[in-house]
Amino acid sequence: MTRPESRTVSGMRPTGPLHLGHYFGVLKNWVEMQHEMEAYFFVADWHALTSDFAEPSRIKEFVPELVKDWVAAGLDPEKCVIFQQSQVKEHAELHLILSMITPVSWLERNPTYKEQQQEITTKDLGNYGFLGYPVLMASDILIYRPKWVPVGQDQLPHLELTREIGRRFNHFYGDFFPEPEARLTPAAKCPGLDGRKMSKSYGNGIYLRDTIEEVAPKVRGMFTDPARLRKSDPGNPDVCNLFPYHVLMTDAEKQAEIREGCTSAKLGCVDCKKMFLESLARFFEPLHERRRVLDADPERVRAILEDGNTRARREAAATMDGVRSRIHF
Amino acid sequence: MTRPESRTVSGMRPTGPLHLGHYFGVLKNWVEMQHEMEAYFFVADWHALTSDFAEPSRIKEFVPELVKDWVAAGLDPEKCVIFQQSQVKEHAELHLILSMITPVSWLERNPTYKEQQQEITTKDLGNYGFLGYPVLMASDILIYRPKWVPVGQDQLPHLELTREIGRRFNHFYGDFFPEPEARLTPAAKCPGLDGRKMSKSYGNGIYLRDTIEEVAPKVRGMFTDPARLRKSDPGNPDVCNLFPYHVLMTDAEKQAEIREGCTSAKLGCVDCKKMFLESLARFFEPLHERRRVLDADPERVRAILEDGNTRARREAAATMDGVRSRIHF
Repeated sequence: MTRPESRTVSGMRPTGPLHLGHYFGVLKNWVEMQHEMEAYFFVADWHALTSDFAEPSRIKEFVPELVKDWVAAGLDPEKCVIFQQSQVKEHAELHLILSMITPVSWLERNPTYKEQQQEITTKDLGNYGFLGYPVLMASDILIYRPKWVPVGQDQLPHLELTREIGRRFNHFYGDFFPEPEARLTPAAKCPGLDGRKMSKSYGNGIYLRDTIEEVAPKVRGMFTDPARLRKSDPGNPDVCNLFPYHVLMTDAEKQAEIREGCTSAKLGCVDCKKMFLESLARFFEPLHERRRVLDADPERVRAILEDGNTRARREAAATMDGVRSRIHF
Repeated sequence: MTRPESRTVSGMRPTGPLHLGHYFGVLKNWVEMQHEMEAYFFVADWHALTSDFAEPSRIKEFVPELVKDWVAAGLDPEKCVIFQQSQVKEHAELHLILSMITPVSWLERNPTYKEQQQEITTKDLGNYGFLGYPVLMASDILIYRPKWVPVGQDQLPHLELTREIGRRFNHFYGDFFPEPEARLTPAAKCPGLDGRKMSKSYGNGIYLRDTIEEVAPKVRGMFTDPARLRKSDPGNPDVCNLFPYHVLMTDAEKQAEIREGCTSAKLGCVDCKKMFLESLARFFEPLHERRRVLDADPERVRAILEDGNTRARREAAATMDGVRSRIHF
């Protein structure tokens, strides 16, 4: 079994519709990567159980929704492999094997584990599977033996743990897993409508499936530069909560005009918001068109996953043949 | 899917040849149970990784040896299902799902976990999989939805943990797993040749595959009643290290004779040992005959496992259909 010179794998939990923060923080990078290399993207439904074990019916609902969001955002099932984690049982087998060589202390030291245990008080995060989710994550990644893993700065410790688990396997059973490298997602500032982090739980998001009609009233109610009380006051785009959206979605020339108009008090926030809604409409157009195509063909998502599951299974099965032979199973 | 009125499941780790302690403590009970109910017995090779992950090649060697020991001891592949855990991938899938609902605190409180961590210092037992082996054990058992699990008194806490994990699944996802009940193995005193517990690591065992010629010198060197220095001293079978073997293997009438001869100083230890070797030879005869048949047909063990794996997979797959539907996967 050879490793393609360039391959990537990543996943998302099906826990809700995706918003602009997901798009600019993750998906945009995925869409680019699918053109550069062999790419595997999976709906991490087993992972969703680590936190949502008490309400798994919602996970099921979100699986097709997540695929729709991905394809709408530009993932092309002809270019990349889109699949569902729980349909590739080999992940569970590798998870079990890697669990045997992963020190509990590595998992207890995982910063996200400690953080979430302290911060999330509405869910029971005291389960064995929650402690071990980096082992599952390592299995999800290593089973495709990728060269690149797209991560944000804050996920680097997870990738490092994956690399350490792979190294430990190689140490005991001989060189087998290549060390995946981080492909850092360029940092993109995409605050929520209220200025806090865009998050489902804050209810401050613009969702990829929202219509402009749904977004418009929320945008009209947004804070901008808190120091600019009247249109005749000059504004400061660098502290404004709206301007980052222009940076993401408005072309450079127009961005310069907006900055100039705002700081010189010629352009008011009401007009600036209108311009943003125009940019957003342009941004949404191809996404919504792709979603319409999907919605018109209820079998399509199922077919995408079925095809992707088959392709992922083939690769995962080949890796597991190698793993079993290394451990003499 | 219905549960057979009566079914049992149990397993052993393939970590070495079986001795008389295993036979009288476990196997004898299994052999009886196969005639009373539908029975599943598995070679727990994934479990062996929890402690032997650093030397897995030895696990592979011991898999066929364990099956030979079982069949020699009287397990009949026509009567029961003999299979290999790692060949029924559904165990790994159920393990992953149950890991999501099993509190870490239950595992940390597991008495065997604490004990072994303290006592076994030659192996690294700090891994995630070792902490979680009761979750794997629960999966191994629950996936066959048995009514009975054969256990020794000391394993009752494990079975209780399995029952608790099953109950917790039922609590979240609706009644599905029946609670398996303990079928207690009758306590059988079977000390090692040196009077300590019979154990591979003490080198004090009589192995099921030993020949009488191999055992005889060890038996001749055995301690008996330490207070009986000469044949003319009366002995006490109740403190003798040999007499328990007569209890296990010599018929009742002869046992009474031995007791009488020993306590009246008419029967010396040398003769008593000869009588034991006769009993042992009688005991070994059918075991060794069955082993000879197996050894004559190198394909036989493979065929037994292949057939058993298929039958186990069928049941495990049916359970997993039910599990997935309960968790909406």
